[in-house]
Amino acid sequence: MSLIIIGSVAFDAIETPFGKTDKIVGGAATYASLAASYFYKKVKIVGVVGDDFHKKDIDTFTEHGIDTEGLQIKAGEKSFFWSGKYHNDMNSRDTLITELNVLGDFDPIIPESYQDCEYLMLGNLSPQVQQTVIKRLKNKPKLIILDTMNFWMDIALDDLLETIKLIDVLTINDEEARQLSGEYSLVKAAKKILAMGPKYLIIKKGEHGALLFNEDKVFSTPALPLADVFDPTGAGDTFAGGFIGYMAKAGTINFETMKNAIVYGSALASFCVEKFGTEKIVNLTEKEVADRIQEFVNLSAFTLTEA
Amino acid sequence: MSLIIIGSVAFDAIETPFGKTDKIVGGAATYASLAASYFYKKVKIVGVVGDDFHKKDIDTFTEHGIDTEGLQIKAGEKSFFWSGKYHNDMNSRDTLITELNVLGDFDPIIPESYQDCEYLMLGNLSPQVQQTVIKRLKNKPKLIILDTMNFWMDIALDDLLETIKLIDVLTINDEEARQLSGEYSLVKAAKKILAMGPKYLIIKKGEHGALLFNEDKVFSTPALPLADVFDPTGAGDTFAGGFIGYMAKAGTINFETMKNAIVYGSALASFCVEKFGTEKIVNLTEKEVADRIQEFVNLSAFTLTEA
Repeated sequence: MSLIIIGSVAFDAIETPFGKTDKIVGGAATYASLAASYFYKKVKIVGVVGDDFHKKDIDTFTEHGIDTEGLQIKAGEKSFFWSGKYHNDMNSRDTLITELNVLGDFDPIIPESYQDCEYLMLGNLSPQVQQTVIKRLKNKPKLIILDTMNFWMDIALDDLLETIKLIDVLTINDEEARQLSGEYSLVKAAKKILAMGPKYLIIKKGEHGALLFNEDKVFSTPALPLADVFDPTGAGDTFAGGFIGYMAKAGTINFETMKNAIVYGSALASFCVEKFGTEKIVNLTEKEVADRIQEFVNLSAFTLTEA
Repeated sequence: MSLIIIGSVAFDAIETPFGKTDKIVGGAATYASLAASYFYKKVKIVGVVGDDFHKKDIDTFTEHGIDTEGLQIKAGEKSFFWSGKYHNDMNSRDTLITELNVLGDFDPIIPESYQDCEYLMLGNLSPQVQQTVIKRLKNKPKLIILDTMNFWMDIALDDLLETIKLIDVLTINDEEARQLSGEYSLVKAAKKILAMGPKYLIIKKGEHGALLFNEDKVFSTPALPLADVFDPTGAGDTFAGGFIGYMAKAGTINFETMKNAIVYGSALASFCVEKFGTEKIVNLTEKEVADRIQEFVNLSAFTLTEA
């Protein structure tokens, strides 16, 4: 029994109004697996890096109990590199550099020891690679969550539509939900997207929180209002990782459990943006996580009282 | 003991992607008093109209138990008229016509029978007029809520700053909170605005819900995701009216009560946008309101469970 997380493991160079970083470790699978590791102990990563990825970077995964047997290290090649600059509102950013490097011809390897996978998170990658992973698992996982972005809707829509037929939970942001469905209303968008295959849809709204839809229910969770958002990079991946980490630990797949999973995911994401890169989420204590969850309860819980 | 609502009582002509209206009854005090009337039975309106305002329009207030003694009718003059067109996203609009008419030299009259006022809502009007109302009340109300907009921050900031020193709850939208405080972060904005006088700040975020701040707490409520938003006109006023109507009925002023008041206000606002103008909120049954409140509970309530 394990949780597999596949996605980019990469270097990022980030500039925000609060400062800038040199190349630091990033990537969807990095953020998601670190987040998941706070809730579930059998997280296994699938990805690819070059030999510019240092042993100490791999050690960070190991120290969090994350299995890296499925992380290929390509000798003589370089890791995926992304560089971006956030605008003052932190909601928009310019990509300055994208070097695919090892990710260009990424062929995911699923080690035999990963075949006990019950929970699968397909981080943002080409839909074809995401689909390959599903096909290489001998047993269908209990829950498959897929994260994607507008880029794949633009250049690989047919592949994406084929892939999301095979999954349980799709996570995209509000603009992507509108693009994928052709509907402005998120309610109508959700209805159309759920008809494409996924049983659940999570619409990420950044500072406005997230919405969870299934066929007949909707749940809304706020984002924690923060005085400073230092760096939004990885927040969505951290959210998704926290979500599936909670689901894997809970072991029960239904709407009620997912409500909790979304709150836990949101709590992890709220830490992520408080420092650059993974700096904050590599070093959380159990108490910090529990306190933050309580902040979310205080933020949105109320006891209905007739006046 | 009563709740006074002051604001515009007006005609609107509205165009949205769903259609357009001729001159229909609108105005902040209209929406707010109708909304408040669902929770509290002693609502009294202060405003001014011309003799183009028909008896049947006044009757609508009366039928909801709203006292109109403070609604001046100016013979030979015309009511305030606003015409606007919403863009496809419904979040932005162009004002086509603004005719101040009777509102140009509005001098609010507080009838003697209104001096039992315990709850006061100052709908969006010039801060000077809002302040006049406070000064003409012989006893300080238990709770004063003030709604305003960027327009007054642009042309009457000093008056506005003076007026909000006298109130308890300020309601503005997120962009207005940023403008008033000079802070992008809503947490920082709230801190600065609360230092200006109000004990509570409500930041309205439209389709993203609302935030309630006091000195040390924050509460977030979502907006109900809707398949169709027909006409957003008056939603903010309906929200504020529902809020203070609930507060007046509850009779207890604290953060916990306000959480409920915000949910009730949001529920009323969610009805408002489902039809043009006041069409939906003039004819709600108790059951419709109760069912909608339950939808809000379902939308945001969760039972925290450790996985």
